[in-house]
Amino acid sequence: MSTFGHVFRVTTAGESHGRSVTAIVDNCPPGLSLTEDDIQPQLTRRRPGQSAISTPRNEFDRVEIQSGTENGLTLGTPIALRVLNEDQRPHDYKTKKMDLYPRPSHADWTYLEKYGIKASSGGGRSSARETIARVAAGAIAEKVLREAHGIEIVAFVSSTGDEFLFPPTPEHPTATTQPGFQKLLETITRKQVDAFQPCRCPDADVSARMVALIEKVRDAHDSIGGVITCVIRNMPAGLGEPCFDKLEAVLAHAMMSIPSTKAFSIGSGFGGCQVRGSRHNDSFLKGTGDREKLHLTTKTNNSGGVQGGISNGAHIYFDVGFKPPATIGQEQTTANYDGQEVVVSSGGRHDPCVVPRAIPIVEAMAALTILDAVLVQRSRTAMMTR
Amino acid sequence: MSTFGHVFRVTTAGESHGRSVTAIVDNCPPGLSLTEDDIQPQLTRRRPGQSAISTPRNEFDRVEIQSGTENGLTLGTPIALRVLNEDQRPHDYKTKKMDLYPRPSHADWTYLEKYGIKASSGGGRSSARETIARVAAGAIAEKVLREAHGIEIVAFVSSTGDEFLFPPTPEHPTATTQPGFQKLLETITRKQVDAFQPCRCPDADVSARMVALIEKVRDAHDSIGGVITCVIRNMPAGLGEPCFDKLEAVLAHAMMSIPSTKAFSIGSGFGGCQVRGSRHNDSFLKGTGDREKLHLTTKTNNSGGVQGGISNGAHIYFDVGFKPPATIGQEQTTANYDGQEVVVSSGGRHDPCVVPRAIPIVEAMAALTILDAVLVQRSRTAMMTR
Amino acid sequence: MSTFGHVFRVTTAGESHGRSVTAIVDNCPPGLSLTEDDIQPQLTRRRPGQSAISTPRNEFDRVEIQSGTENGLTLGTPIALRVLNEDQRPHDYKTKKMDLYPRPSHADWTYLEKYGIKASSGGGRSSARETIARVAAGAIAEKVLREAHGIEIVAFVSSTGDEFLFPPTPEHPTATTQPGFQKLLETITRKQVDAFQPCRCPDADVSARMVALIEKVRDAHDSIGGVITCVIRNMPAGLGEPCFDKLEAVLAHAMMSIPSTKAFSIGSGFGGCQVRGSRHNDSFLKGTGDREKLHLTTKTNNSGGVQGGISNGAHIYFDVGFKPPATIGQEQTTANYDGQEVVVSSGGRHDPCVVPRAIPIVEAMAALTILDAVLVQRSRTAMMTR
Amino acid sequence: MSTFGHVFRVTTAGESHGRSVTAIVDNCPPGLSLTEDDIQPQLTRRRPGQSAISTPRNEFDRVEIQSGTENGLTLGTPIALRVLNEDQRPHDYKTKKMDLYPRPSHADWTYLEKYGIKASSGGGRSSARETIARVAAGAIAEKVLREAHGIEIVAFVSSTGDEFLFPPTPEHPTATTQPGFQKLLETITRKQVDAFQPCRCPDADVSARMVALIEKVRDAHDSIGGVITCVIRNMPAGLGEPCFDKLEAVLAHAMMSIPSTKAFSIGSGFGGCQVRGSRHNDSFLKGTGDREKLHLTTKTNNSGGVQGGISNGAHIYFDVGFKPPATIGQEQTTANYDGQEVVVSSGGRHDPCVVPRAIPIVEAMAALTILDAVLVQRSRTAMMTR
Repeated sequence: MSTFGHVFRVTTAGESHGRSVTAIVDNCPPGLSLTEDDIQPQLTRRRPGQSAISTPRNEFDRVEIQSGTENGLTLGTPIALRVLNEDQRPHDYKTKKMDLYPRPSHADWTYLEKYGIKASSGGGRSSARETIARVAAGAIAEKVLREAHGIEIVAFVSSTGDEFLFPPTPEHPTATTQPGFQKLLETITRKQVDAFQPCRCPDADVSARMVALIEKVRDAHDSIGGVITCVIRNMPAGLGEPCFDKLEAVLAHAMMSIPSTKAFSIGSGFGGCQVRGSRHNDSFLKGTGDREKLHLTTKTNNSGGVQGGISNGAHIYFDVGFKPPATIGQEQTTANYDGQEVVVSSGGRHDPCVVPRAIPIVEAMAALTILDAVLVQRSRTAMMTR
Repeated sequence: MSTFGHVFRVTTAGESHGRSVTAIVDNCPPGLSLTEDDIQPQLTRRRPGQSAISTPRNEFDRVEIQSGTENGLTLGTPIALRVLNEDQRPHDYKTKKMDLYPRPSHADWTYLEKYGIKASSGGGRSSARETIARVAAGAIAEKVLREAHGIEIVAFVSSTGDEFLFPPTPEHPTATTQPGFQKLLETITRKQVDAFQPCRCPDADVSARMVALIEKVRDAHDSIGGVITCVIRNMPAGLGEPCFDKLEAVLAHAMMSIPSTKAFSIGSGFGGCQVRGSRHNDSFLKGTGDREKLHLTTKTNNSGGVQGGISNGAHIYFDVGFKPPATIGQEQTTANYDGQEVVVSSGGRHDPCVVPRAIPIVEAMAALTILDAVLVQRSRTAMMTR
Repeated sequence: MSTFGHVFRVTTAGESHGRSVTAIVDNCPPGLSLTEDDIQPQLTRRRPGQSAISTPRNEFDRVEIQSGTENGLTLGTPIALRVLNEDQRPHDYKTKKMDLYPRPSHADWTYLEKYGIKASSGGGRSSARETIARVAAGAIAEKVLREAHGIEIVAFVSSTGDEFLFPPTPEHPTATTQPGFQKLLETITRKQVDAFQPCRCPDADVSARMVALIEKVRDAHDSIGGVITCVIRNMPAGLGEPCFDKLEAVLAHAMMSIPSTKAFSIGSGFGGCQVRGSRHNDSFLKGTGDREKLHLTTKTNNSGGVQGGISNGAHIYFDVGFKPPATIGQEQTTANYDGQEVVVSSGGRHDPCVVPRAIPIVEAMAALTILDAVLVQRSRTAMMTR
Repeated sequence: MSTFGHVFRVTTAGESHGRSVTAIVDNCPPGLSLTEDDIQPQLTRRRPGQSAISTPRNEFDRVEIQSGTENGLTLGTPIALRVLNEDQRPHDYKTKKMDLYPRPSHADWTYLEKYGIKASSGGGRSSARETIARVAAGAIAEKVLREAHGIEIVAFVSSTGDEFLFPPTPEHPTATTQPGFQKLLETITRKQVDAFQPCRCPDADVSARMVALIEKVRDAHDSIGGVITCVIRNMPAGLGEPCFDKLEAVLAHAMMSIPSTKAFSIGSGFGGCQVRGSRHNDSFLKGTGDREKLHLTTKTNNSGGVQGGISNGAHIYFDVGFKPPATIGQEQTTANYDGQEVVVSSGGRHDPCVVPRAIPIVEAMAALTILDAVLVQRSRTAMMTR
């Protein structure tokens, strides 16, 4: 369905063609200061054309608030957001040739199977352009979280191909326990991440190796995937709903709904499966925090901030794996819609690696997930205090 | 929330204490042959006490259909399922001592933060006993899928600790491309999986190494995690809803809602992020199938059966990572509710590795996800044929 | 679907046959004192066999809490409720003869059209027995509302056939403006209502006329309908969600989901359509209340406590119209399933008028609606106070 | 919430001020021919300024499809619709004076209580302008219903003040059994309804009396309410979901969510409560229809086309009662926000009776309700045919 969230609900529409991409944000808290300026920065971070190694299209992606605010304040009524499709330039994608075959590992074939019809420009809603609506809505959620709880969400690239910021080792099958990892989670800012253009991996050496890899891949008319790590700081304890809507389950849902994702993990992740319980368990100790109620914290954070599906007040952190982009310049042998073998190649403009641009999308989906969990839990705690 | 699914909806209740575990299954297709005998086998596969290396509790976990059927046929009305809590034996868990501190990496602390109260037996709904309701409901979904589409769902253990069925290599960072992996997905049956007791890893050598590892861990009063791989065969194309409810997103949600899970991946997963697009892309070729409409298939299946969030007719396969169980016999230093340091150890009966018992739970959640996607898509295709 | 509510969610199962009727109540506030004794009284008020003019079946309808509480306190986890079908006695209803034709104005025909199968006992989920689950769940909601806000919900019979408690007049096309009506709403209690057995119309004269009418109808082997009026006192202002989930819209949904209902109105209702705006408008005046924030109230209450779909703090009151029961002893000419004309009569035990027994059902659905609205609004106000 | 529907889902945003009114229509069947021309006629029928007795504002209300179609066909992806707020002219409504007091029986006070803030133009989402989004979305649903099933939906005014098309009598407390009523339901068309401008009551005499009444009310600077009757013809049997989502319950929800509604009834309605069962029951007889499967029909239709919450194939018909508009030119004594008594009058442009303009809104909500029920039922029947 095209709606995400239970109380803080986002509904989106729009694909590459057509007039615009639209989002309706329902149940935003009223009285929040909100203008387009709060939303635009994340849209701009998502925008292509920011460096030599990403696609040179130059969409402006200006958001316009259609309703739900007055005099710069939210009214509590639904906020409609609209971003025009200014640069549609269908001539690259929408060639007669392309319409004759389903592109390998694209959604042309599956959309046709699902709907019996598909957009001529390709995958329709599977287009990355759909993510504009998520980023716009997520920027609103982020602002609420920041103002209500001081919650900070920062994502960065932790691997590109086989270049890792924290490569797994036999001693440390998961980054969780590696020296420097928890410190990085504690301190990393978006500004620091953006300083490492174009890879958005916050380490000069690793970033340089990533650039070299991406250039090599680009010159081979190929593509490569990567992993984004995201941290959520200043989390309130108690978020997440047993049993089906555990916080990590909804985060996984949110992240795996982003185009091109193939994997999600929280805390120690797959690597943690190799670690023994005695080492993996996060023992408690008295918290030193200034938050009155949260008087216990954990020595380690292998859990990634959740236990039994509920946040424990520690940082939430998780990984999202993106496959290599399906659109490549190399020739590929595939079948056309009639089942006949054809050799195809794509002449359009393509990102060899989409991971850096996906960072604001990951942050947006994290914000949507957490704010919805906050609102659901607030309805509970509000009843408990009476 | 306690409901899963959009049209085929399952709502559950129940924890370790109390009279019973309950599930209500809504919108089951009418006219389906259904008795307790269709449900019990998966409950029995989930049951503890099946081998020397799992916990010796002997719950019978007999399911009773309360409503929604008559004369062995479903009526289309909601099916209530009930499994009594026969063996509650609270004396192991519910000691006064245990109530004094939150067990490390358990949900005691987070439940208390969330609800301001918690069950004396521990984590309440975070208890594995909650999963009985999922397995019972999933067995109904499986039967519908089998009868309507011949869909088969088989899960097996693919790693325990650092013992892997298909260990990653620099050439094959993901099992997807490894010799033998796709063949295994094509042919593996539940009977074969169950033949490799107690590890449910369908390879004699690897299974033996896993047993040795688990025994070693058990003797050290410790625990270990593992990974379950699940395959869904005979998938119809066209399932999954853009953009937020992509099939892999809902599968991720389903799997990450199972207690103790920390990671989910579909198709090539995290390993696929290291592979180039030219190798990762799944080219099309003419299908040989007898299914009239599905005339294209893919040469490879790195995607795991989904493209753009929609099934393409190839096998769906995915991995679910389980952390080591938090309950261990070793002494641990932690804090009590007052923040004072205490040394604790657990004298109860515990599984050193829960992964083999989690197999029917993974299968159940897969069935619930796929059947719901089928029903949503059916409402669409039914309109298209007029 | 079998679920009602957005945050406070009730899912039910069960029909006349089968083992039990089940309800799962999700998101009940934790820490609430709750035992079966809080639920049973309303089930008993709903029970048939309470007087000479209702059906003599003697079901005991004992509720059992299955989960979600411990030591008499709610845990915040889902509460499963179960009421056994003790007195199924299918011999009256389930005769071979009855199976040959769809009973006029019953759900036999429509269930068969919908599901392609139906329960042998008749309408399955259209049975009044389904309402047990609503009443049980509603009793929990009522307790929360009472403890959190002092909210009181009282329903009474305001007409039976053409016997009216407040008959419409040209001057007063709606009861709203009639002398005595608002006073009655202000003061009426359940105890007073129950004192007027069997009609539950709180006026000695009108009640006597109703009894006479029902006896006359009964003796003619016929049936008659009626109207229930319900008032909700001590309402918080601000409940109800624009635009689709206005409070009166959800109340209408709730009430029109009760079997045999044909009409719903709030405030002045259909009669109010005849009144001019200058008389119908509810002007404001300074409130005298002890509730700090609510400093405005209205002079009149033609609106029934809602404006723009949101509660204004005045009493909510509404009417629910019930058709005459379809099961009558008289002979009726109808068609069997083959379309052939048949003459049928029903020999079973039947209520000539179900309205008095429907009172706890109306109260229950009101409680479920209001508590859900409270929880949704609480998640909003909780964010506003930070 | 701002979403209506379970599978065919409509989400709306927008109020009197702001750039536009927006609707997102999700899960529209793909491959449907659809352009703005399919939507505009109903928007135009809803438009004010059509006659001397309605408000002279001249908004053009042109709808623009933003996404979800290509080359005039629906893609199956969400359809965003946008209608600009061209004529905002806030000077009438948004005077400093008006901001000082909550208008009697308007939503100013309740919005402020709910959100702690309100739009300066008044009721925000309680504005009739919100209904534009419903009408636009409903026009799409209508087209699907018409093409898939030949379903026809026609609404007309059946009373204004105390002028009735079918006045109740002691013999016929409900219009259902009155001579001419069922015939009118069978044959009435929108063209016929629109021929009786401005009242849209399809009877020359009654319409003339209504005009006279409305003019009298207008000259008194007052307002008056009325009732709309709506019929849905060519209904498929089997729509509506037990037990909470009975078809009449969802219809009631839909209708009571329209601004200014106070009452809903289906079939015989409140009047039917006065009729005996022997007369009220709808006996079956062999259908003569050309629809293969539906071989039974009913002699009478007191039920209004539903039994047990499920459509029986007969015409659905129902009444919706609208209160007199709250905005009147007369002076009213009320309180300002400080609780002080003030005398107020409204100088703006107002409809003395909104019922005729509400006709396309009632039709739209009916279409949204029925199409959603069709899609849910289709997912069931699609499974039954395998």
